[in-house]
Amino acid sequence: MSETNLHDVAVLAKALITCDSVTPARGAVFDVLEAALLPLGFAVDRFVSGEAPDGPVENLLAIRGTHGPHFAFAGHLDVVPPGPGWTSDAFAAEERDGLLYGRGAVDMKGAIAAFVAAIPAQSDGTISLIITGDEEGPATYGTPAIIARMATRGIKPDLCLVGEPTSTARLGDVIKIGRRGSVNIWIDVPGKQGHVAYPHLAHNPIPPLVAMLAEIEALVLDEGNAWFQPSNIEITDITVGNPATNVIPGHAAARLSIRFNDLQSGAALADRIDALAKRHAPDATVIARVSGEAFLTPPGAFSTLIGDAIEARTGLRPELSTTGGTSDARFLSRLCPVVEFGLLNATMHKLDEAVAISDLEALRDVYADILARAFAEQL
Amino acid sequence: MSETNLHDVAVLAKALITCDSVTPARGAVFDVLEAALLPLGFAVDRFVSGEAPDGPVENLLAIRGTHGPHFAFAGHLDVVPPGPGWTSDAFAAEERDGLLYGRGAVDMKGAIAAFVAAIPAQSDGTISLIITGDEEGPATYGTPAIIARMATRGIKPDLCLVGEPTSTARLGDVIKIGRRGSVNIWIDVPGKQGHVAYPHLAHNPIPPLVAMLAEIEALVLDEGNAWFQPSNIEITDITVGNPATNVIPGHAAARLSIRFNDLQSGAALADRIDALAKRHAPDATVIARVSGEAFLTPPGAFSTLIGDAIEARTGLRPELSTTGGTSDARFLSRLCPVVEFGLLNATMHKLDEAVAISDLEALRDVYADILARAFAEQL
Repeated sequence: MSETNLHDVAVLAKALITCDSVTPARGAVFDVLEAALLPLGFAVDRFVSGEAPDGPVENLLAIRGTHGPHFAFAGHLDVVPPGPGWTSDAFAAEERDGLLYGRGAVDMKGAIAAFVAAIPAQSDGTISLIITGDEEGPATYGTPAIIARMATRGIKPDLCLVGEPTSTARLGDVIKIGRRGSVNIWIDVPGKQGHVAYPHLAHNPIPPLVAMLAEIEALVLDEGNAWFQPSNIEITDITVGNPATNVIPGHAAARLSIRFNDLQSGAALADRIDALAKRHAPDATVIARVSGEAFLTPPGAFSTLIGDAIEARTGLRPELSTTGGTSDARFLSRLCPVVEFGLLNATMHKLDEAVAISDLEALRDVYADILARAFAEQL
Repeated sequence: MSETNLHDVAVLAKALITCDSVTPARGAVFDVLEAALLPLGFAVDRFVSGEAPDGPVENLLAIRGTHGPHFAFAGHLDVVPPGPGWTSDAFAAEERDGLLYGRGAVDMKGAIAAFVAAIPAQSDGTISLIITGDEEGPATYGTPAIIARMATRGIKPDLCLVGEPTSTARLGDVIKIGRRGSVNIWIDVPGKQGHVAYPHLAHNPIPPLVAMLAEIEALVLDEGNAWFQPSNIEITDITVGNPATNVIPGHAAARLSIRFNDLQSGAALADRIDALAKRHAPDATVIARVSGEAFLTPPGAFSTLIGDAIEARTGLRPELSTTGGTSDARFLSRLCPVVEFGLLNATMHKLDEAVAISDLEALRDVYADILARAFAEQL
């Protein structure tokens, strides 16, 4: 592959898709990206983090420049498994009728190709790429490991754009200025097994579990605010596992998933559920895992700049959204203002994931304009 | 084996225990009982009923006499599986320190041996034995099949004694004059699977299931009455089966077991739960299986007679109980007054099930006295 080719958004996108990089990604797909960045003058730092079960994970931190505002592009080269049933091979990067097909086309190798293609030969500021091989997996050793490495090296961006596929119907119709947080909670209620004919000799754990779940289901955590929908609790599983009709079970468990806005914190929610559960079952075990706190980059100069760049190229004024699942922006938001903007998400994680070549080109143009405006405005 | 021997309660008990008759019982164990009954002048009717999965099942109906009151002894020759860990082989019928060990020793081959040993050479009434090979299993083709055969033959007892092990601390301390009914109910709530981040696109079946279970748990069916404890509902299982933390499940199910007294009926309880469930989830599926209605033989001449016979031999006045699980008495109670009285239940269904030889002899004596009193009083 020639250097010239890899600065072409479609060529680079194809080259990246051709590398099977089911999460966690390592090796070849990073080789391609490194080969594209070196000719642009980037110092490329590739490193492997972590150990089983959540590692090892390959990450890449590329930087060009030492002065002026520091603008970071962030994203991931790993993809979810393609599964069977594709029209053409998921890693063939086949082009048909102006569409480029392949796992990762929109989520998010296409955006990473657009990052690279948007970078001019020279610029009035520092540009970095924060690229992980583990965003679709547990992410334990992905972006958090790059952030730790940046801290060690004294690197801190001023602005960060994450290239997740935020567009819904047309490129640029939605950008994300925040994300809800997420916490999963496991509740385990011990009981004492026995025969249904002699309930006084047993202790059925289901009634206290049902009572606490009814109370949890009735909770109104908040009403949302200007930028977030209300926080929401879903009971996602209940497990008893008792096949015998005449046996009172000795054990009952449930699992919750809470998606919460910036009026809540994962730790406070975990404490609240813990206290509620133990009012019903003092010997219950409650384990919480916060996979991300909520974050918000309040609407302002950065989101306005991005909106202007999108409108100049597409004619659309993007909606500023905070909906959807979590992304690595939850980690990067600790460093600087973060906004997410990328391709159409209609085919992400689905069969025949595809991106329009024209969208890749438009995204490249918008990213280039964002870079230019950010450096011009010294944000 | 000589005829004389098999009229000895301990000899017959040993001979019956020696036959492995894990439910459903067929063949050898019935041969032994038949050999014991023929010398006493019984007409023995052995027949096999039913087909897979609940059959075939062997049953035995033995009758002697055509005149006077008809007194029936009822019981079962099948036993629950012994499981590993016995001190001596579960079917060896080993005698140690006055105790006879073996699966079925108290539940209820010992009582069947006592039935036979209690029967005099001649009596002033009709005596029958209603013995099934499937009481511990589904019982579909057990005692109900014998009752159907009795109806065909125009046979109907006036009194029935079931030899289940009702004694708790000492032989004769408890007899059962009734049993609660039992109904199992399966509730299935359909939902619509989706991602926890987009709950408006899914329909979680757990909240309506939890709400209905909380309401079911709070139900007070009744306060019991003079002879029964309150009816009781146990939620025995909940199944969702959703391993994914970020998925709203498409399905949730629960199972109930209701043990109810004679103030309730299985069908009415099933209807009540069905209506309650559908108020919370109109598309829920509710399936009920009534395994037995409650029955009561009101305290009176029959229970008094049995109490008198027990007191005469043991000095104990038995408690009249209706507690515990179901038994085949639930079927027999449709024919005539039924009372259950048998050996100590401490070791039933357990390792090293055992009966004291002295209890076998005492039980034989009490059964013989009950027979004599019933015929004398022309009950």
